[in-house]
Amino acid sequence: MDLKSYLSEKKQLIEAFLESYYSAPFPPKILRESMVYSLSAGGKRVRPILCLAAYEACGGRVEDAVPQASAIELIHTYSLIHDDLPAMDNDDLRRGKPTNHKVFGEGIAVLAGDGLLTDAFCLFADRRFRRPVIADSAIAQCVCELAHAAGSQGMVGGQAQDLLSENSEPDPITLIFIHEHKTAALISVSVRIGAILAGADEEKLERLTRYGENIGLAFQVIDDILDVEGETEVIGKPKGSDEKKKKLTYPRLYGIEESRRKAKELIDASVSALSVFDGKAEPLRAVARYLYERRN
Amino acid sequence: MDLKSYLSEKKQLIEAFLESYYSAPFPPKILRESMVYSLSAGGKRVRPILCLAAYEACGGRVEDAVPQASAIELIHTYSLIHDDLPAMDNDDLRRGKPTNHKVFGEGIAVLAGDGLLTDAFCLFADRRFRRPVIADSAIAQCVCELAHAAGSQGMVGGQAQDLLSENSEPDPITLIFIHEHKTAALISVSVRIGAILAGADEEKLERLTRYGENIGLAFQVIDDILDVEGETEVIGKPKGSDEKKKKLTYPRLYGIEESRRKAKELIDASVSALSVFDGKAEPLRAVARYLYERRN
Repeated sequence: MDLKSYLSEKKQLIEAFLESYYSAPFPPKILRESMVYSLSAGGKRVRPILCLAAYEACGGRVEDAVPQASAIELIHTYSLIHDDLPAMDNDDLRRGKPTNHKVFGEGIAVLAGDGLLTDAFCLFADRRFRRPVIADSAIAQCVCELAHAAGSQGMVGGQAQDLLSENSEPDPITLIFIHEHKTAALISVSVRIGAILAGADEEKLERLTRYGENIGLAFQVIDDILDVEGETEVIGKPKGSDEKKKKLTYPRLYGIEESRRKAKELIDASVSALSVFDGKAEPLRAVARYLYERRN
Repeated sequence: MDLKSYLSEKKQLIEAFLESYYSAPFPPKILRESMVYSLSAGGKRVRPILCLAAYEACGGRVEDAVPQASAIELIHTYSLIHDDLPAMDNDDLRRGKPTNHKVFGEGIAVLAGDGLLTDAFCLFADRRFRRPVIADSAIAQCVCELAHAAGSQGMVGGQAQDLLSENSEPDPITLIFIHEHKTAALISVSVRIGAILAGADEEKLERLTRYGENIGLAFQVIDDILDVEGETEVIGKPKGSDEKKKKLTYPRLYGIEESRRKAKELIDASVSALSVFDGKAEPLRAVARYLYERRN
């Protein structure tokens, strides 16, 4: 299959939806500007695309799940804004552009994050954006799972542990906890949400969960490798910026070679989990391989 | 009716639920500690109590809606933590105790707020805490309405406008915008949620919406009056702290007498809206009168 076209089509669907979702102005002007600034800062839309691909693998029509998939991107974007704050990672650059608080100030950046996070749940459950094919029971279950993956025992917990581990000696258990919670949880739930919205049976849901967990972990390992190897122009932040902050990373703990091997193993496991699926799961398989090969 | 007993009984139900909800430890320890610190800092639980009272007024059994009502308190608590941050109102005291970031540091305070906000939606939709009498469709509608009231076009928007209006000359339109969004929206939706969860008909829902809107605005006007008149020991923050920051407030714009008259008018309108309800709405009426008379 032509993955490039697939990714760019899905990306367009999501970005068109997000743009229309925030097209009507509301006061105060600067809050919306700040939210839209980070939302349109050039993300790859990996999470919503995985959601749509899982929805499709379970027999759904991609167009029907675009609003809910886009809601996941709001949550991802909020997490980047808050992670970059001076009280957190204190980053000035994100995807090659000044971070939200550098442009709009800290107070508005906190609120832009809060707004995106909260709006995500409104959008996810909003009847005006929901195709009749998606049941109320699926919405309720997904809201709970999405919030669990993003909340104190998911992404927020991972970020808290990451913050507490700065400048400390690396240890493998903490590293895996951070990766599983900070990154893998939201990626993995994105896949599950696609399946649940499509009404997948237990076996398919279980397989896609395994796919998501493996790909979620792989994603962060690869991110860590890219931070060491990548160039500033390509990854959008200074090369080795994690190392400067003595962040716990895979390459720091195990070296580059072992990290690459680990990433490959996780990607292979994610593809194996899809063995019961037919050709409709081809995009999920291709995305897994693409993540391993990506350079930014 | 004995409002004091009513309020203390409902408060106990909510606090017992919240305590059990966060009773199991999860890492990192300090994140949970920080969330529980603010959650148990002595709130009056006005929003969840209003939700339960509306649920009851529409014929529901209070016990059945405790988890969903408690979720609203998580959102309220997150908003206090973020509002107090140095980049926002920069408050050191809240309800007579050091604010969250004073105890746990700014980074953890941001994350504690993020965690509470996100967990609220997980709790609200969680099947494990849901009585069968509450339908999936009601959950989906409430999630959307709750997130809308709390999000960028609700509470977050109000706080953003409040932040942008510091040190500026007061003007009535901005003041009403801030009150309606920052405070009234969440109070008002709390009442609506009680009604929707109970399956209220259109007329009752419309009446309770009017009740909630009026009481929500009254609540903030009275808060402003208390800030001028109250004593530090009673309201838990230094008297006149809004004035020091040149915050836009009702008393600053209209004086104390006119503010009192306005609060009375709003409370009366909220009680009038309940005319179609029977004795089951007595707690809602009593709460309205109590809010007017409160001294902290």
